[in-house]
Amino acid sequence: MAGPVTITGIEGIPEVRSGDDLPRLIATAAASQGLAFQDGDVVVVTQKVVSKAEGRFVDLATVEPSPLAVELAANWEKDARHVEVVLRETKRIVRMDHGVIICETRHGFVCANAGVDASNVPGNETLVLLPVDPDASARRIRDGIRFLSGADVAVIISDTFGRPWRTGYTEVAIGVAGMLPIIDYVGRVDTQGRELRATWICVADELASAAELVTGKVNQVPATLIRGYAVPRGEGSALEMVRQAERDMFR
Amino acid sequence: MAGPVTITGIEGIPEVRSGDDLPRLIATAAASQGLAFQDGDVVVVTQKVVSKAEGRFVDLATVEPSPLAVELAANWEKDARHVEVVLRETKRIVRMDHGVIICETRHGFVCANAGVDASNVPGNETLVLLPVDPDASARRIRDGIRFLSGADVAVIISDTFGRPWRTGYTEVAIGVAGMLPIIDYVGRVDTQGRELRATWICVADELASAAELVTGKVNQVPATLIRGYAVPRGEGSALEMVRQAERDMFR
Repeated sequence: MAGPVTITGIEGIPEVRSGDDLPRLIATAAASQGLAFQDGDVVVVTQKVVSKAEGRFVDLATVEPSPLAVELAANWEKDARHVEVVLRETKRIVRMDHGVIICETRHGFVCANAGVDASNVPGNETLVLLPVDPDASARRIRDGIRFLSGADVAVIISDTFGRPWRTGYTEVAIGVAGMLPIIDYVGRVDTQGRELRATWICVADELASAAELVTGKVNQVPATLIRGYAVPRGEGSALEMVRQAERDMFR
Repeated sequence: MAGPVTITGIEGIPEVRSGDDLPRLIATAAASQGLAFQDGDVVVVTQKVVSKAEGRFVDLATVEPSPLAVELAANWEKDARHVEVVLRETKRIVRMDHGVIICETRHGFVCANAGVDASNVPGNETLVLLPVDPDASARRIRDGIRFLSGADVAVIISDTFGRPWRTGYTEVAIGVAGMLPIIDYVGRVDTQGRELRATWICVADELASAAELVTGKVNQVPATLIRGYAVPRGEGSALEMVRQAERDMFR
């Protein structure tokens, strides 16, 4: 029998500020609760603290809204500067309604408001953007943890996305390092010798969702340690999880 | 610090046949690896074994395909009887292409081929359908485990679904018992006193995804024990996770 997979919240990470050494904050908090990183661990870090450490703030006072942003904002009683920031982060608008813009971000992710967020930020006039390159963010955290602890961990940057067809948000992976986000079972057979039907399993999203079970939404637990899972190693990218439009039967 | 959440595969469950007492098979397998169910545990059971125990088999030899099924099957070099079974399980066809039918099932779930599956089934001429009422299936398993062990557990029936926008399949909940599938944070505030942006978290899907980390796809591990998660208790239904079309911004 394989041992259980354990999911442990890394608690006591202080409020993250621009320029903070996030790997060190994570490693210090982990050590203070007796957690020592091991080769093969998966560390899931929520997007918000990554963006904050990388200084991905926008001061609304500096934003000049475009005519489109002004018009959209007027229709929905929104702040035109906030709408402008969302549009700047957007490659393609999927849909707009009820004051929500479903966007394809410059990375290719489809989510509400291009991931631009005002919650969990001190002061009312500041927005937080997604990292410029979440895979690179994950690699930096992975390298930092290896430097500090010697352990070769995989890192996932997670964010909370809505989805079609199903109610409620779940946590997904927007950046990965030291792992493959998808396990490819193509050609593999089941216990009866049949080829498997669902052949591409997005384990990075499953790990991100598992981590949300301990981070929750109201606690300050922005990082999670997952141990005991045989993570598929390799140099993957979160962009592998972006489904190409011409292959997307589900839209 | 809250303790970790642990995810343990319940191994050694034999090949499930129609009429089997699934709660007893699960409880016996758990006991033989030293697992005793406790109040508050979450037991995730994969759809396939639930359908098998409930006798949700269709013998292809008994199926008379409709003209539509014959036509679709001819276009894609499929078995018209298999297509016919998919159509019978379908309330609405979302899209058809490349031999795959994205269906809204009679329950309201959107998935490929209405969840009709041939893999993991002995013999080539038999298909397996989704349970008629997966919430009722979950309740029966929950009641059975309580009868056998005395423990008040929550139960999730899981299945492997594709999704729009993102590559790869993840595990989702198609039936629940003894829990609420979605945590509602509406009006809750974060550590900075701001209202939360993502206010409905689909924890049932997150738990199903977490379970997939130990069930995998090629092993015979159809049930999982999740311990240490403060599952939201209540009499929920998986139908709460079906997003109403008029409120679906993401389609």
